[in-house]
Amino acid sequence: MEYETLLWEVDEDGIGVLTLNRPDRLNAFTVKMTEELLEFLETADADDSVRAIIVTGAGRGFCAGMDLEGDEVQGDNVFGLPEDVDPYGPDAEKIRDLGGTVTLRLYRMKKPVIAAMNGVGVGIGATMTLPMDARIMSDKAKVGFVFSKIGICMEACSSWFLPRLIGMQNALDWTMSGEIQSAEAAKSAGFAAEVVPHEELLDAAKARARRYVKGTAAVSVAVNRNLIWRMAGARHPIEAHRADSRAMLDLSMGDGKEGVASFREKRAPEFAAKPSSDMPRGLDWDLAPPFMED
Amino acid sequence: MEYETLLWEVDEDGIGVLTLNRPDRLNAFTVKMTEELLEFLETADADDSVRAIIVTGAGRGFCAGMDLEGDEVQGDNVFGLPEDVDPYGPDAEKIRDLGGTVTLRLYRMKKPVIAAMNGVGVGIGATMTLPMDARIMSDKAKVGFVFSKIGICMEACSSWFLPRLIGMQNALDWTMSGEIQSAEAAKSAGFAAEVVPHEELLDAAKARARRYVKGTAAVSVAVNRNLIWRMAGARHPIEAHRADSRAMLDLSMGDGKEGVASFREKRAPEFAAKPSSDMPRGLDWDLAPPFMED
Amino acid sequence: MEYETLLWEVDEDGIGVLTLNRPDRLNAFTVKMTEELLEFLETADADDSVRAIIVTGAGRGFCAGMDLEGDEVQGDNVFGLPEDVDPYGPDAEKIRDLGGTVTLRLYRMKKPVIAAMNGVGVGIGATMTLPMDARIMSDKAKVGFVFSKIGICMEACSSWFLPRLIGMQNALDWTMSGEIQSAEAAKSAGFAAEVVPHEELLDAAKARARRYVKGTAAVSVAVNRNLIWRMAGARHPIEAHRADSRAMLDLSMGDGKEGVASFREKRAPEFAAKPSSDMPRGLDWDLAPPFMED
Repeated sequence: MEYETLLWEVDEDGIGVLTLNRPDRLNAFTVKMTEELLEFLETADADDSVRAIIVTGAGRGFCAGMDLEGDEVQGDNVFGLPEDVDPYGPDAEKIRDLGGTVTLRLYRMKKPVIAAMNGVGVGIGATMTLPMDARIMSDKAKVGFVFSKIGICMEACSSWFLPRLIGMQNALDWTMSGEIQSAEAAKSAGFAAEVVPHEELLDAAKARARRYVKGTAAVSVAVNRNLIWRMAGARHPIEAHRADSRAMLDLSMGDGKEGVASFREKRAPEFAAKPSSDMPRGLDWDLAPPFMED
Repeated sequence: MEYETLLWEVDEDGIGVLTLNRPDRLNAFTVKMTEELLEFLETADADDSVRAIIVTGAGRGFCAGMDLEGDEVQGDNVFGLPEDVDPYGPDAEKIRDLGGTVTLRLYRMKKPVIAAMNGVGVGIGATMTLPMDARIMSDKAKVGFVFSKIGICMEACSSWFLPRLIGMQNALDWTMSGEIQSAEAAKSAGFAAEVVPHEELLDAAKARARRYVKGTAAVSVAVNRNLIWRMAGARHPIEAHRADSRAMLDLSMGDGKEGVASFREKRAPEFAAKPSSDMPRGLDWDLAPPFMED
Repeated sequence: MEYETLLWEVDEDGIGVLTLNRPDRLNAFTVKMTEELLEFLETADADDSVRAIIVTGAGRGFCAGMDLEGDEVQGDNVFGLPEDVDPYGPDAEKIRDLGGTVTLRLYRMKKPVIAAMNGVGVGIGATMTLPMDARIMSDKAKVGFVFSKIGICMEACSSWFLPRLIGMQNALDWTMSGEIQSAEAAKSAGFAAEVVPHEELLDAAKARARRYVKGTAAVSVAVNRNLIWRMAGARHPIEAHRADSRAMLDLSMGDGKEGVASFREKRAPEFAAKPSSDMPRGLDWDLAPPFMED
């Protein structure tokens, strides 16, 4: 995987680090970065040797949001949107916020994704972390949902993700004020799982990733991750019951047999099922219930 | 705006204070107050000179709930409900809890609304604050969802709002016990954003309101506020994507151009769009997705 | 009520203690225990002399999850699932995770249910507590959503319940890692309402139960409990408005009259309505909106 705007490195445990790599622009987001991120996520999700993904930034920023000084990269509309399409008209579905295409893909990943925020993340640099499973911040990092200060609105589905992470009162406060939050404030609100000394950031992220991949069944992690994200908006627990009953039957005949055997024999399990081919039957893991397209 | 049960005063920044004004009754709620609140909210929402609304109480209470000793004001049913309508029958939709008409209107306001609780708020005096964006409590204030103690049930859609603010475990505890909560307990549960010395209450509320209106685009704040409230019950982030993509395109061609220009030119922005006329096209801001009537 | 796997004792206030009673197996879950739990919940819910239910474990464990060494009790599939049913096929609805049948029943109880965790609860021993209204943990108790460590997936609708209790970030962490959590970690995440010294556990649970039943109307508590659980997944507050308007009208003509009268006369109320027969008309309390079967 070779990219213009991204770097990728994966270790022998399957824990990879994806680096947003436009350090001279504080890793500001562009149309090119969107395309490369989508391609990366698709590839990594299909590769069973990848067990967990850490996302960080090169240099002193995490991601400075859309590159507002980058017309040459992004075309007429600085946010990459088609100004000739009528939101009232028949082509309205063609209007797709770039950040949303990335967060919707992250939402249905089969691997844990951890944001390791090394510096400032604002705009899409803040919202892209919301469908990740954990956010670890350097004590030098900050985060800002600054949309109201530049006359636009919160994007990348952040109105759905943010209150589920930090609660309604914080979500309204952060996005109506548009203010930048310190790492400590972000931890206190529930945004950051951890704040660590700057130089320990990647080690902390890797230690967390290791907790998700060592001794766990990759398909179990994938199913749990997907059940939690998909049920976050479900009307009634019966929807979880329908999904988990079928997944449990399937898993109980696969890695579950090994899990039970290793438990009885007091030895470490050796799980064999692969996310690429062995996700439970009976559920379409690429769509959300009730099978709405994304 | 002249009311029997309310006072209204707005400053040059567009920050207004609405005072529930029946101090001899601890501002207890009546049918008249419901009507006046609905009229007030409609008027203030349509008035672009109003940027934020603070709600407080006159005298020593915030709002003592329905006026249980006020038959003369409220008719036969002390809660203002039509006892001759059959909840099984064809007219069931005519049964509308008074508090709910107010909270549903608050839910879709285009301006930040802040509760400045100066004293006790119980019953509708507690539930009416839930669809506001922040609650600031005087250290003398208390709050109580006391319904189970008087043989009725939680109202004003509070079963929807309360757990989204304070979590399931607290919401169940507060409403099954019917107990009054101190300001500190309310802060610890996530109900109050701040608890301040009694004499600093209005200043604290105004300082918070100023954070939402100074340097921000009024339409951006309105869109963010509405997206967050509407997506709190949405099934899938794709619903946010559909809404924010269209809103973003619209805003990127309006206040967003000024926002980007001011950012590039390192100057303060001058936003021109008005909530009364310039809300993004393609979304019906008066209805919730999927366009359910309220 | 006589059971093989359960003990039940109720005091004069209607506060009962249900003890999972397989202490030599750390109260591990079996098909028999599922059947007895469902029968117990049905019976207790229909018995107006029962006002609140405390669930605890006999001996040193709370519940060690499915009895993984109990083939003789559970048949071919250690999780009690029908291996001959195709999750793709027409009989897929017959696949019902055992834990889910219990948690779905708990979800619609008319009485407060409190988990008093005396020791380790893992697997279904953890997930069965989620639709209870509060969790009190002994300082010796632990909790673990260990599914990923034995090759299966989270069950008992826990993907729906868990993030609503402890937030997305904690829920993903606990279930991807499969790690056991201490009582203190469980309190800090919002899982436990209280952690108490081991010998004070049942007293603390009873004190909490008493707060829910003393001076409260049983039907009010039942309605509030059900409204909160059912609205946790509702799209829009209008759904709460439809439900609470009708319930409020009904209650205002029953226990509400006594509540208002006792308030005016400054005396203790004597509520007469019974959950078994007097739940508000116009709502089907055995089904969830929009009347989805469970």
